[in-house]
Amino acid sequence: MKTYPVEIAGVRRELPVVQVGEGVAVALLNLLGDPELTEAVAEEMARRLPEGAEVLVTPEVKAVPLAHALAVRTGLPYVVARKTVKPYMIRPVTREVISITTGKPQTLVLDGADVERIRRKNVVIVDDVVSTGSTLKGLRELIESVGGRVVGVLAVFTEGSPRNDVTALGHLPLFKPEQ
Amino acid sequence: MKTYPVEIAGVRRELPVVQVGEGVAVALLNLLGDPELTEAVAEEMARRLPEGAEVLVTPEVKAVPLAHALAVRTGLPYVVARKTVKPYMIRPVTREVISITTGKPQTLVLDGADVERIRRKNVVIVDDVVSTGSTLKGLRELIESVGGRVVGVLAVFTEGSPRNDVTALGHLPLFKPEQ
Repeated sequence: MKTYPVEIAGVRRELPVVQVGEGVAVALLNLLGDPELTEAVAEEMARRLPEGAEVLVTPEVKAVPLAHALAVRTGLPYVVARKTVKPYMIRPVTREVISITTGKPQTLVLDGADVERIRRKNVVIVDDVVSTGSTLKGLRELIESVGGRVVGVLAVFTEGSPRNDVTALGHLPLFKPEQ
Repeated sequence: MKTYPVEIAGVRRELPVVQVGEGVAVALLNLLGDPELTEAVAEEMARRLPEGAEVLVTPEVKAVPLAHALAVRTGLPYVVARKTVKPYMIRPVTREVISITTGKPQTLVLDGADVERIRRKNVVIVDDVVSTGSTLKGLRELIESVGGRVVGVLAVFTEGSPRNDVTALGHLPLFKPEQ
């Protein structure tokens, strides 16, 4: 299998390169099940936390352990935007996002209790990889729609085109699938 | 809203009591977004880790930050059993589970790379709440089907009937929905 070597926050990984659509392959980062990398990234992100940050918000699911580790280091609370409305949620707020990678609609959901933790707060979005930015855009709109102020975005990697609206620890290229 | 008070690993919480089906309500534990409780539980679970444990396995998603925190404390690797097959997975292994609470089929999936981390290893299952035990049963069968040995189950709470196959830090009753 083709891999792509990265060194991030002092930790080296060989990321598998996998095809995700017609004519495009990506290097796959998976923080789930990688506590060493997650902790190293959290340590590095804590140093780059925007001034005045009050709460972290992360989309379900791959960045959840990172958001937890960053919350532990910074003492900030964190909120998970879920992919579906859960039966127990009270007054959930949702937003539909079209994933450019898969073409499928994706839902982002905040529980009503979490809305109260975001309203009028300085919010930092935490994610693993920001590629097309569609999830980021939807999450930003969702947070702003409930009265949160997005003061920064922390990601492990940007991917494809560089972006100046994201503080990333590294950058991943897009690949052509192997013939 | 009706709540149920708990004290677990020295941390107090008022869990919301929510209706989940005909004639039954539960006290809802949510570790997502609760780093204080997650860290306290991980500290307590680390002391109760079964002898000879080699790898932790947790079902997606609510116990993921707990598995991460327990992995950090114990130095053990952890694996997340996902709910769906992902496009990037190589030789995934799946098992269908019928959730007794919702009546809906649920899928548990191990990526092929994670199968290799479980095979011939002493596995400890980590979860937040074990209620009917249907997820636990499915996860246990999935792990054993790929050659792992389940040497223990750690949960924050058992719920409903007490169980002697789970090491839990507390127990939750089932509730009748409010009229």
